[in-house]
Amino acid sequence: MSRAVVLLSGGLDSATALAVARERGHACHALSLDYGQRHVAELDAARAVATHLGAAEHRVVHIDMNQFGGSALTDRRIPVPETLGEGVPVTYVPARNTVMLALALGWAEVLEAECVYIGVNVVDYSGYPDCRPEFIRAFQGVADLATRAALEGRPTRIEAPLIELGKADIIRLGTRLGVDYALTVSCYQADAAGRACGRCDSCRFRRQGFQDAGIPDVTRYRADAARSG
Amino acid sequence: MSRAVVLLSGGLDSATALAVARERGHACHALSLDYGQRHVAELDAARAVATHLGAAEHRVVHIDMNQFGGSALTDRRIPVPETLGEGVPVTYVPARNTVMLALALGWAEVLEAECVYIGVNVVDYSGYPDCRPEFIRAFQGVADLATRAALEGRPTRIEAPLIELGKADIIRLGTRLGVDYALTVSCYQADAAGRACGRCDSCRFRRQGFQDAGIPDVTRYRADAARSG
Repeated sequence: MSRAVVLLSGGLDSATALAVARERGHACHALSLDYGQRHVAELDAARAVATHLGAAEHRVVHIDMNQFGGSALTDRRIPVPETLGEGVPVTYVPARNTVMLALALGWAEVLEAECVYIGVNVVDYSGYPDCRPEFIRAFQGVADLATRAALEGRPTRIEAPLIELGKADIIRLGTRLGVDYALTVSCYQADAAGRACGRCDSCRFRRQGFQDAGIPDVTRYRADAARSG
Repeated sequence: MSRAVVLLSGGLDSATALAVARERGHACHALSLDYGQRHVAELDAARAVATHLGAAEHRVVHIDMNQFGGSALTDRRIPVPETLGEGVPVTYVPARNTVMLALALGWAEVLEAECVYIGVNVVDYSGYPDCRPEFIRAFQGVADLATRAALEGRPTRIEAPLIELGKADIIRLGTRLGVDYALTVSCYQADAAGRACGRCDSCRFRRQGFQDAGIPDVTRYRADAARSG
């Protein structure tokens, strides 16, 4: 059974990417990065999703990128905005996907895994530079050279199975593959129990996705959450 | 004054890369990675070198890659060999340079630094896949796409100023630029005070480098160290 390292954030997209990797027959080794997030709810969600989708194991790598600052997701002095502005969102974490893919590549090498899965998609890459298809292709160029496996002619494949999908498509796909989205947390400012605010960009995209997919929104919201808009 | 992030391991090469970045007029922000090394002597050395060469600041990022295993430098169950075998050395840390460059890229983005310096060179890339010039070029391809700065037409430049140099050339260059190599630690199994074994590959390349450069070897060796061979 071939192995895959799957980057698992605890959100909707990466849970779906894990379900796809499992569907393709891989033994899935889930990897979460604790890069100094605002809340631990998403790591709890990642653990629950890994168990739910039968991952072979789940590891959390701690890395204190918050000392760099520069993002509303790691620097508590920058407020999380409730509306999407122009350009790159302030919730963008500097070079986050590069760092996550680099770590996944390292673990894949040790595990002799065939590929690394990452859940980036069309909605993400409207704002984040490191979610674009050309970024994934460039990172494949690094993976083709960086490792012992690459030297031996077996470079790790970077798989981004959701990259051309919108939120509704992702939710339809995951639902078909048995993903329980109630376990996932997408909200940028979820409470300690992982309940969503209903207001931030991430909540809005997610709710719209369920609506467009014609699938009931199983997201757990806070009592004071915005329910529409 | 333009900023540069300089990857600083505490060894001879990265100290020289820092001296080159300073010579080129950058304000240097030194970055060390604590990825679960066998000893802390190299981090102590990195701190001393950063101060000695006038870095604007020095940060240490902790990251528990040792949980992945797979390298004699992070997995204590794998002995450090005293002779160089065929192929990739067991002291190779999976995807290490990819991880280090990714973190440096993230910090460079926050600092609005112009470039990232890494001390890889000809001697390294005889064995390590992620020290080759084509690897550095591939990572530049990632940097050209990964960041907000890249989107805005100012991608971070990856500088590997030693890449075509052998050990003796590096030592000559650093000596000319005022590097005190007694502060640096290259040994894979240095003691807590940073004194070298004189036996491992890294010690051998270093000693040979001083000899070929015709410069006195200022390395601090353990009392029981091998002095030649």
